[in-house]
Amino acid sequence: MTTTIAVLGGTGPEGGGLALRWAQAGHTVVIGSRDAARAQAAAEAINAKIGADRARGAENAAAATEAEIVALTVPYAAHAATLESVRAACQGKILIDVTVPLVPGKVTRVALPPGGSASLEAQALLGPEVRVVTAFQNISAEHLQELGHAVDCDVLVCGDDKASKATVIALAHDAGMTAFDAGPLANSVVPEGLTSVLIGLNIRHKVKSSGIKITGIAD
Amino acid sequence: MTTTIAVLGGTGPEGGGLALRWAQAGHTVVIGSRDAARAQAAAEAINAKIGADRARGAENAAAATEAEIVALTVPYAAHAATLESVRAACQGKILIDVTVPLVPGKVTRVALPPGGSASLEAQALLGPEVRVVTAFQNISAEHLQELGHAVDCDVLVCGDDKASKATVIALAHDAGMTAFDAGPLANSVVPEGLTSVLIGLNIRHKVKSSGIKITGIAD
Repeated sequence: MTTTIAVLGGTGPEGGGLALRWAQAGHTVVIGSRDAARAQAAAEAINAKIGADRARGAENAAAATEAEIVALTVPYAAHAATLESVRAACQGKILIDVTVPLVPGKVTRVALPPGGSASLEAQALLGPEVRVVTAFQNISAEHLQELGHAVDCDVLVCGDDKASKATVIALAHDAGMTAFDAGPLANSVVPEGLTSVLIGLNIRHKVKSSGIKITGIAD
Repeated sequence: MTTTIAVLGGTGPEGGGLALRWAQAGHTVVIGSRDAARAQAAAEAINAKIGADRARGAENAAAATEAEIVALTVPYAAHAATLESVRAACQGKILIDVTVPLVPGKVTRVALPPGGSASLEAQALLGPEVRVVTAFQNISAEHLQELGHAVDCDVLVCGDDKASKATVIALAHDAGMTAFDAGPLANSVVPEGLTSVLIGLNIRHKVKSSGIKITGIAD
């Protein structure tokens, strides 16, 4: 089953990679940006890559309005403002929060934000009618952009609504990843913090995309 | 190089498993407990298993005094009280904190304690002359107890002193595990919280010891 997914911040490498893979899998993708022209250019690049016309661009609020599911892939500094701008458009929908609360200059150190985690802040800001689900924070953009490249990192999916998590787990599968229900939204501190751990491992081991795989669960 | 390691809470399955593997690797192990007789019984069981006389038992504070390195493997409810009882004995030493701040009845939900994490609370309680390093929170006791069983879970090692982390990474290797420097002590929220995620995965997937492996780093 295909759906229409807005990817806010989809002009960046992480959101662009997810958008590319979702479009390749047959979903309709609306790239969101503060700048509709940049969004449209990113969408056209995706269409050229996949050889099909499944991506279009729009300003963030318009993109969220047009979509059934909204993914947020902006830097933490733009997190609250972007959410404010799409709050009305997201009511009744799933919001996939990919945001990691990194502190510029201290990205290898876990620093939880005042609201406990980026996704708890998103839930507080959007209100109870938006089903916030957190996912993809640990996936290196490097891997996403190459369509043929297997993603050697599993996705931890946190949220308070089981059906919404199942939807996001299926979307992760469509994008070539294995995803797990990692518990309630409160557990999102783990994948959000894990990104700082992985950035530190990348630096210390001189690699570009360390990740994690879940073990001990037979497929 | 072998050392003397106190394992406080070593009468339990997690501490007992680490103690068994360290004794097997040639280290001297002092099992610590509030009850010296129980500690001695656990030590004798280890000696019988490995066929050598490398473990002994003592009351917690005596065990910490006799050791060069102290590992703490008690339930979170006993964390602060046990640390108080060994504070003097730990000065100048490495304290390996294995504690996970689980909330009884809600063990699949990440709940960070007032001090930010169990290990930050340990550091605050022990003072700056104790080098607190956090490790082994995600390792299933099931695996540790069987000496021939490979541990299919990596160890994230957090701490503010690089040399102490290197010592703990070597001790993890002695116990048959791969361990990684996961950054400063502040990052310990990740492995501490990850245990709740893994317990949830165990329940949902009907397994006993899910874990994580780090990917993307060549050995």
